[in-house]
Amino acid sequence: MGIGKKLREECGVFGAFSFSSSVVSYIYYGLQALQHRGQESAGIAVYNGEKVNFIKGLGLVTEVFAKENLKALEGRLGIGHVRYSTAGSKGIVNAQPLVANFRREYMAIAHNGNLVNAEELRISLEEEGRIFQTTSDTEIILHLIAKNFHKGLIQAIKESMREIEGSYSLVIMTDRKLIGVRDFHGIRPLCIGKKEDTYFISSESCAFDVIGAELIRDVEPGEIVVIDENGLTSYKDEVSEKKMPCVFEYIYFARPDSIMEGRNVYFARLEMGKMLARESPLEADLVVPVPDSGVAAARGYSIESGIPIGDGLIKNKYIGRTFIAPDQKEREIGVKIKLNVLKELVKGKRVVLIDDSIVRGTTMKRLVSLLKDGGAKEVHVRISSPPVKYPCYFGIDTPSRKELIGAKMSVEEIRRAIGADSLYFLSIEGLKRSLGFNSICTGCFDGNYPLEKIKEQVYNYEV
Amino acid sequence: MGIGKKLREECGVFGAFSFSSSVVSYIYYGLQALQHRGQESAGIAVYNGEKVNFIKGLGLVTEVFAKENLKALEGRLGIGHVRYSTAGSKGIVNAQPLVANFRREYMAIAHNGNLVNAEELRISLEEEGRIFQTTSDTEIILHLIAKNFHKGLIQAIKESMREIEGSYSLVIMTDRKLIGVRDFHGIRPLCIGKKEDTYFISSESCAFDVIGAELIRDVEPGEIVVIDENGLTSYKDEVSEKKMPCVFEYIYFARPDSIMEGRNVYFARLEMGKMLARESPLEADLVVPVPDSGVAAARGYSIESGIPIGDGLIKNKYIGRTFIAPDQKEREIGVKIKLNVLKELVKGKRVVLIDDSIVRGTTMKRLVSLLKDGGAKEVHVRISSPPVKYPCYFGIDTPSRKELIGAKMSVEEIRRAIGADSLYFLSIEGLKRSLGFNSICTGCFDGNYPLEKIKEQVYNYEV
Amino acid sequence: MGIGKKLREECGVFGAFSFSSSVVSYIYYGLQALQHRGQESAGIAVYNGEKVNFIKGLGLVTEVFAKENLKALEGRLGIGHVRYSTAGSKGIVNAQPLVANFRREYMAIAHNGNLVNAEELRISLEEEGRIFQTTSDTEIILHLIAKNFHKGLIQAIKESMREIEGSYSLVIMTDRKLIGVRDFHGIRPLCIGKKEDTYFISSESCAFDVIGAELIRDVEPGEIVVIDENGLTSYKDEVSEKKMPCVFEYIYFARPDSIMEGRNVYFARLEMGKMLARESPLEADLVVPVPDSGVAAARGYSIESGIPIGDGLIKNKYIGRTFIAPDQKEREIGVKIKLNVLKELVKGKRVVLIDDSIVRGTTMKRLVSLLKDGGAKEVHVRISSPPVKYPCYFGIDTPSRKELIGAKMSVEEIRRAIGADSLYFLSIEGLKRSLGFNSICTGCFDGNYPLEKIKEQVYNYEV
Amino acid sequence: MGIGKKLREECGVFGAFSFSSSVVSYIYYGLQALQHRGQESAGIAVYNGEKVNFIKGLGLVTEVFAKENLKALEGRLGIGHVRYSTAGSKGIVNAQPLVANFRREYMAIAHNGNLVNAEELRISLEEEGRIFQTTSDTEIILHLIAKNFHKGLIQAIKESMREIEGSYSLVIMTDRKLIGVRDFHGIRPLCIGKKEDTYFISSESCAFDVIGAELIRDVEPGEIVVIDENGLTSYKDEVSEKKMPCVFEYIYFARPDSIMEGRNVYFARLEMGKMLARESPLEADLVVPVPDSGVAAARGYSIESGIPIGDGLIKNKYIGRTFIAPDQKEREIGVKIKLNVLKELVKGKRVVLIDDSIVRGTTMKRLVSLLKDGGAKEVHVRISSPPVKYPCYFGIDTPSRKELIGAKMSVEEIRRAIGADSLYFLSIEGLKRSLGFNSICTGCFDGNYPLEKIKEQVYNYEV
Repeated sequence: MGIGKKLREECGVFGAFSFSSSVVSYIYYGLQALQHRGQESAGIAVYNGEKVNFIKGLGLVTEVFAKENLKALEGRLGIGHVRYSTAGSKGIVNAQPLVANFRREYMAIAHNGNLVNAEELRISLEEEGRIFQTTSDTEIILHLIAKNFHKGLIQAIKESMREIEGSYSLVIMTDRKLIGVRDFHGIRPLCIGKKEDTYFISSESCAFDVIGAELIRDVEPGEIVVIDENGLTSYKDEVSEKKMPCVFEYIYFARPDSIMEGRNVYFARLEMGKMLARESPLEADLVVPVPDSGVAAARGYSIESGIPIGDGLIKNKYIGRTFIAPDQKEREIGVKIKLNVLKELVKGKRVVLIDDSIVRGTTMKRLVSLLKDGGAKEVHVRISSPPVKYPCYFGIDTPSRKELIGAKMSVEEIRRAIGADSLYFLSIEGLKRSLGFNSICTGCFDGNYPLEKIKEQVYNYEV
Repeated sequence: MGIGKKLREECGVFGAFSFSSSVVSYIYYGLQALQHRGQESAGIAVYNGEKVNFIKGLGLVTEVFAKENLKALEGRLGIGHVRYSTAGSKGIVNAQPLVANFRREYMAIAHNGNLVNAEELRISLEEEGRIFQTTSDTEIILHLIAKNFHKGLIQAIKESMREIEGSYSLVIMTDRKLIGVRDFHGIRPLCIGKKEDTYFISSESCAFDVIGAELIRDVEPGEIVVIDENGLTSYKDEVSEKKMPCVFEYIYFARPDSIMEGRNVYFARLEMGKMLARESPLEADLVVPVPDSGVAAARGYSIESGIPIGDGLIKNKYIGRTFIAPDQKEREIGVKIKLNVLKELVKGKRVVLIDDSIVRGTTMKRLVSLLKDGGAKEVHVRISSPPVKYPCYFGIDTPSRKELIGAKMSVEEIRRAIGADSLYFLSIEGLKRSLGFNSICTGCFDGNYPLEKIKEQVYNYEV
Repeated sequence: MGIGKKLREECGVFGAFSFSSSVVSYIYYGLQALQHRGQESAGIAVYNGEKVNFIKGLGLVTEVFAKENLKALEGRLGIGHVRYSTAGSKGIVNAQPLVANFRREYMAIAHNGNLVNAEELRISLEEEGRIFQTTSDTEIILHLIAKNFHKGLIQAIKESMREIEGSYSLVIMTDRKLIGVRDFHGIRPLCIGKKEDTYFISSESCAFDVIGAELIRDVEPGEIVVIDENGLTSYKDEVSEKKMPCVFEYIYFARPDSIMEGRNVYFARLEMGKMLARESPLEADLVVPVPDSGVAAARGYSIESGIPIGDGLIKNKYIGRTFIAPDQKEREIGVKIKLNVLKELVKGKRVVLIDDSIVRGTTMKRLVSLLKDGGAKEVHVRISSPPVKYPCYFGIDTPSRKELIGAKMSVEEIRRAIGADSLYFLSIEGLKRSLGFNSICTGCFDGNYPLEKIKEQVYNYEV
Repeated sequence: MGIGKKLREECGVFGAFSFSSSVVSYIYYGLQALQHRGQESAGIAVYNGEKVNFIKGLGLVTEVFAKENLKALEGRLGIGHVRYSTAGSKGIVNAQPLVANFRREYMAIAHNGNLVNAEELRISLEEEGRIFQTTSDTEIILHLIAKNFHKGLIQAIKESMREIEGSYSLVIMTDRKLIGVRDFHGIRPLCIGKKEDTYFISSESCAFDVIGAELIRDVEPGEIVVIDENGLTSYKDEVSEKKMPCVFEYIYFARPDSIMEGRNVYFARLEMGKMLARESPLEADLVVPVPDSGVAAARGYSIESGIPIGDGLIKNKYIGRTFIAPDQKEREIGVKIKLNVLKELVKGKRVVLIDDSIVRGTTMKRLVSLLKDGGAKEVHVRISSPPVKYPCYFGIDTPSRKELIGAKMSVEEIRRAIGADSLYFLSIEGLKRSLGFNSICTGCFDGNYPLEKIKEQVYNYEV
């Protein structure tokens, strides 16, 4: 994770179905591997053949689960979730998986994404006399499936998918089945893995590596994948929506060792760095990455430009949730608690400072001044993505437009605001070339969202 | 509370509606006064004119609520709950009030009682595509009201009451109203209080004393009491079910300073003690109460018999949740951690030991032997209620019939089992006379339950 | 414990030496029985033949010790301590037993009492280059014994006793011995118990009952009792100081089932009540005890006067550490959270309200008004001890003289302040007669302390 | 920190004295910057002109201190400590600073290092009748200074230094002075900083950067630095011991942004990497650092060799204290929870894997196999220090010799054990050249310790 307040992913999901053995430890390790997608709460629900047991709690996976309570979660079918919650909806009530008793059995669901018609759906369900016990979108999906369940499980999911709009990668557990569902544009990632006779569904493939499973393939946009005693079955209607995965997964969210849509994330970032060097060549002495978010792009920049890379900013690895001491001023301490400049390295040098993105600009401003105070002769900032100008409606926690520096200022204004000698953002074109494919959601950069109704909304969006 | 494993009440409920001021501190103090009705979890939900805020947690009221989080619960309308949970359904998931988002507002409910047709109702609601997130009966009631809500609030509650069978004293908060509901037989207590322009609904009247409110009256069996900006309105259908409040509230559960159905609980217990002395006179030197459950009856017994009362058993006030040390045997330590005999007092005396009831008999056996080891010449046990022979279906946590000593043994057998020189249980007749009314549920003593279907069930009930 | 802010005992001590078996569970249960002597911290130190293991923590005995950590404390020799700390010296640092490494072995000490020359001793020890890691008197004793240890253990203790002045009941563990020491006036209690081949030393005999041990005798004033592989040995110099045990142990602190100086505490209290009735006869209808501190005296008063006793004040058993809600006023809620008046009982009656003592008078004032609001026609307050006028220098936490109502007002002024119809305090003479012996410390009532230097100090003591 | 079980530093110390303002927040931030030197406990003691307040606790600095309790530590003079404890002496009892009451004032001490004659000193102090309340060496130093204090503070410290043998960097607070002391060989680091009118003493200079202070100089071996109202005064006897700082500070322990003995740590590591490339050139395709311990040396290796560097091992940043799930085997999960191989990068490549040291060899073995499983054609391991063959007696937690792979095996045997294609350790000569000075403690590599008595001990040291 970066140092300042970055954009934040909201969730990671994981599910497992085994023909022979308990899956809880797979889910436990899988969620640990997905921990970067959410650190606020974690939960695991397992069906043991008789009933569903579940544990949810606030904190990291390693904090929520102890060896002993993992034993209480034995079973061949289970799902898990890690969550970062947006302000206002914090707390254990919204922790997932959401588990319901249903038809003498159960239904459990874990969700990564965000519905854009949640409000309308909720009102209409409440008009029908249904009650909601959380404020999460996920409960809406649960109700819709339950409501349509008499038509059969697959049909119920299909009809629910027709009603909900937005982004959703779901793992569902009901009727003794593990089900993976991805929205029609494939906005949030979801993939299938396998190890011997156990199937997995995960937000990212890095979770498969830790448990020794292999990545089979991504769940397709609009696909329903059902895993049960009959193995894996895929359901997909003849809808031809355009695949538009979130570009920020490649820029920042996903772990570098994950593969999404066939593309390794680390190499994509390396390529973004190279592209940046090509788009904006410089005379400079040292490439300095912002730890840890700028590391891969900085490496690419260095390779392409031939300018040596050096750890000019040193990270304090042990800082947890720190606070500003009563008699100190925020600006005095700033980022220095977390990062220190290596003066001996940067002194007198023309530095290229590389990061993945600029959101509010406050952290970048402090880093530039930290480097200059440390003796850097020039600080040139290079960002491996375009300026963030619009909010995300699909599961990323974007600050209000007033706080988005890219929405308020021109590049030159930003440069002055952060005190850099020069500033360059990677072009959308360059970004797409780095990925190797064009069909991608770049809404936060250019307002070009997968859903028409959102596009319209954005035209009326004032700073 | 008594010393051994007593029968246990499952809940206490409290609600408040004020025309002018915040009610959260009333609810906080009210729940403290009802703490004897449940110590496992506590919760308060308050509607602040915009939305419902709530806090629920495991532990005593004073443990769950801190001064600061009480501030977050300001509002003129709110309900609260304390809970003792039966084995298997422990945990925060089932803590109350149950709060749901509903029709852009909310519905919150707190329940004391037990439904006897919960299973059927649940299945039928699930068949309709509804989901359950807890295992409590209360969620069923919530669903039924929500489902029928389009017919109007009162009608929705009435129809729900027609569907559910069993005992229920409810406080409900919805539609900016505080609602109190009591089942058709008035099995569990519920009463109305008032202080200036604030109305209260409470399980027991002792909660009114602490906040300086006055007891107005009991909620009638089958009555729906609605308090809102128009004041108090009562709804009651022309159903004429027989009032049959739970006799054990008078014997043990309720606080002695509460008034139920016009009868002060302390005086009822005093009278039971007197009646016991009349039914079973004795030559003896000292009346010893089991602290604290036998205190009032012992006082009555002493007054009626003229035998002096003395604190022959001394209680350790600071014992919390203790455990038996690894190298000790349960029988060695027994009740001695909690009670000590005052040898100087009982030595050489013929002791009448008074308690409210015998459930398993293990504690009484130890007390008798404690007194004998302490030098008592004779120990005569007098119990201010009949032998418990049948389970309760209406909200009391009764052990299985195999553990109920009254279901397995004759009085003489029990006497021998506990090692007493004589043993007498108050008659059902005497019990009713002590209360001053006959229409009461004595199902746990004689199988005479308010619901016919339960009576039938009991005939097939094997020990 | 009483309801308001009572005078508070500072500690309880317990030690055990067995020839054959582990003693930790005896200490655990013994400390539970002594819990009334201190609830702030608890600790156990056990010597297992190789080294001393100890656990200390804040909270009740049942909170500090878990089954598992008790297992880590196996050993045939050990001591324990419960503590109530005076303001300013709270916290785990001062928790006892104090354990030191010493001469390749150990020395551990637990102390009940208070030194009056602590300051001088501390300075002189520090002048010698010694350091202190706590602010407790106990560490001074530890240093003195260590300093003199080269003269032999007994001699070291004797010389330490000559240097320290004040009250002390000590259990010490060193040199594979359990040692009990009591100051020259026997101000704080200490007694010896035995069960099979295990010896015990305890603040009170009630701790022996729970573990099935027998009270052998009190430790004598000025006596050193050593228990080791040779059995029990007593050391006592030919000093003839007057025994002057603390009278408040009998009035309030000690558990009613303890025996001190051959006198059962409950009977002493019963007798105080009787004496009170004789000294101050009344026309009245009902004797009401303040729970739980006035219960035994009230019983005595009722027996002697023939006026019936009744539970006019009902206690809420589940109130822990409560707080006054933000929008409530202290005076509105007052003692009502903890006590409720039983109106039906007191209405129209002339009530005799009995308690053991009045310290500040605020609680008593509220109780009188509670009874009057509840309908009592008259409230006559009878106190089973004289007015507290002077501070205690020997281990009781007395408020400053400005807060002691007995130091500031005449009895008539107090009566008016608390709003009673009449008020009477038991005479010192009556108190002594109730105990059956005259040689007792009544310093807090009349300034007649065991140490001359304290008496002098008191003459200069201003209100 | 590295991934497996590394050698571990035991402590970091920090002190501050200001002429004008409170220093607690400086100490708080300073300790955060030293957190890598110890994560088990943290403590701060501040003298506020009247008395010493202190807070110590288990956990990270950010866990032990909250904004509120920092307020309780206002004062112009204070010291702090972070600690990693060796097995067996865990727990709060040994947490530092050690604070003692002394001569109506106080003495507080924080220590980094290890005494080699602790046992003898302890026995002799106990013979004198002194007691110890901890098992730490630090208490010995405290006793010695207190014992000699009557000769004056500086003399007392000097005499104590003559008695103790081993490594010690101390910050002491007494007599309203801040004192820094470093042992005669300067084994553990200690340096002086300044910001306006505030002086600091710290284990490492990185702590000065975060608070905006400047590094003045190192404390000299054998020097006593006193800071008080008269400013800074230095005391040093004419002893001419050889400076022999610990080489492992440069190899692994110290933060890369610290400067010690004038040498920047990052550059020292960079140089070690270059030297390694020179000493052991290779044909290879990719340099892969072990995160994070091998990063700087890998960079140096890459620069010198011209072989490109790449993040072939990806770290999971959110893993805290994880455990192996009940149904998993340690070897299956291994290091994969913490590190994943980036297969796309290493596939088919000849990899040079760089780390700072090998202790047990188990982690390195797993990393080699992780890379090979990921497709690496060859894995050549290069270590930027010599094999660890001997224990450290000066404050580093070294495993027993049986666990030290360097003590048991030849380099070729180790290579086979870890499964590498080749293995090379940097020579002692190369190490010294990387640092730029020769006088350094390399005892753990060659048994050449600063103290003769230790050298002798080592000859008898069996594997």
